Amino acid sequence: MAAPLVIGLDVGGTKILSGLVDRGGNVLADHEIHSPSESQADVLAALDAAVEELLDDTVGAIGFGIPANLERGTGRILRATNLPLENVDLVSRTKERYGVPVGIENDASVAALAEWKHGAGRGASNLVMFTLGTGVGGGIVIDGQLFRGWAELGHVVVQEGGPPCTCGGRGHLEVLASGPAADRAARDLYGAAGDAHLLIDKAKGGDPRAREALAIIGESLGAAIGSLVNLFDPDLTVVGGGFGAAAGELVLGPAREAARREAIPPADETLRVAPAELGAEAGLVGAALVAYEALDGIR
Amino acid sequence: MAAPLVIGLDVGGTKILSGLVDRGGNVLADHEIHSPSESQADVLAALDAAVEELLDDTVGAIGFGIPANLERGTGRILRATNLPLENVDLVSRTKERYGVPVGIENDASVAALAEWKHGAGRGASNLVMFTLGTGVGGGIVIDGQLFRGWAELGHVVVQEGGPPCTCGGRGHLEVLASGPAADRAARDLYGAAGDAHLLIDKAKGGDPRAREALAIIGESLGAAIGSLVNLFDPDLTVVGGGFGAAAGELVLGPAREAARREAIPPADETLRVAPAELGAEAGLVGAALVAYEALDGIR
Repeated sequence: MAAPLVIGLDVGGTKILSGLVDRGGNVLADHEIHSPSESQADVLAALDAAVEELLDDTVGAIGFGIPANLERGTGRILRATNLPLENVDLVSRTKERYGVPVGIENDASVAALAEWKHGAGRGASNLVMFTLGTGVGGGIVIDGQLFRGWAELGHVVVQEGGPPCTCGGRGHLEVLASGPAADRAARDLYGAAGDAHLLIDKAKGGDPRAREALAIIGESLGAAIGSLVNLFDPDLTVVGGGFGAAAGELVLGPAREAARREAIPPADETLRVAPAELGAEAGLVGAALVAYEALDGIR
Repeated sequence: MAAPLVIGLDVGGTKILSGLVDRGGNVLADHEIHSPSESQADVLAALDAAVEELLDDTVGAIGFGIPANLERGTGRILRATNLPLENVDLVSRTKERYGVPVGIENDASVAALAEWKHGAGRGASNLVMFTLGTGVGGGIVIDGQLFRGWAELGHVVVQEGGPPCTCGGRGHLEVLASGPAADRAARDLYGAAGDAHLLIDKAKGGDPRAREALAIIGESLGAAIGSLVNLFDPDLTVVGGGFGAAAGELVLGPAREAARREAIPPADETLRVAPAELGAEAGLVGAALVAYEALDGIR
């Protein structure tokens, strides 16, 4: 028998991506469906459909990357973001249904795992990853192990008492450095039709106001990177996510500069901030890595 | 032969405390000397004197808690704070000199270890500790293991672009919630003779301005606690250090309230913030725990 493949599922609030992935992180086949928003039953049915689209006898395990807080140890979904899933044991349910090992991780942790194993973080022992998208998330690799806790990197406080975050806190990174933060800055500059895409286009075209608005976002990201560097001293900080990838050095440059100011020596000189390499596939590849961990009994 | 004891050394910028400590964390004998500030040779000689004061044939290992950045893996001192020690391998030197296993950890990590094993954090699997003193430090226990990295909890950014920190950063917790921060607030209220002690006395006496000043410090601490809770979801956050212990609930109460606002569900309701229990002995007991780890070959 050939070495088994796995199915990775990148479960988002808008779409569910599933892929058949080999050990090298290569996506051999993939499938995309719209995420139901109505009920938990609809979401579970959609996940089954996404699995069954790719399921055959080469599949040795299934892994999920999902925007949710998971109970440590069991992987039970406590609360998902932008998806009607709450207090559900997706791992046990999927194991029973398909008779293969099943893994699950927070979506941002999964992306960090993918960048660490197959992307910008190859070879690092300690890595921090931020994903800047509709929200801000991230993952942390400590001493060669993905940290399996919350790692809600979008909810570190950057500006005490600052603008309100969706979670009820104030001045969190998510409200300062997400795609919607760029949308707001664009509307301030260009009116109601402004959004992050326009802001980035204008900045690339040399508009100093657009560059400044993205630099302000980058500085907030840099403050958060500084905090994480001072906690963990990572070899590398990787920045991905849809908005992060689109903005590139327009955000990363100012972020790197701010992080160097905030980092204690010797990290003020040695810290590295690099763009993610896997792009939209990071979630899929990371979910597959979680499946391989389940297959190998690593968890 | 009786079970071996260990020598723990709590090395500070002002004094060096050494103690003979048993496995239960009991300090059987102790000794205090002034910390030399002139040269590395003076400090090393003082450390030898502190060891030799307590050394006898019951001593099976030696442990150091020291305000320094240590190289991961080797424990080499990269840079100490308030002590003329730089790029020195104290572990190898001490091993060669006394022929016993030697451990070393950052002073704040050592205090966290002590509170976890013998203090307020007994039984926790995940713990964050902040020490509020002349500086602000801390330690993190993740999944039943002390995190052996920087864990420079005083240098998380709480107010992006805020007041300058001693490290060159801006708005770090250390500049907002240390003893010197309270000294400054006291001078603003009571003139040049004001200091943290007076501020705490006035607050205990009911002075609303003093209570407010300590609450502001507590809120900054709470923002940092919120960040750490969102990263690690600890069972408990412990607050110690000289200033932290003296201020007690005057700082912890507002910190707890702010942390609950910043923490994502369900931690907004479940998080706990408790005072340290070991007081000034935490460093000594923690250094002894590091010695026992070296003795048992745990590192």
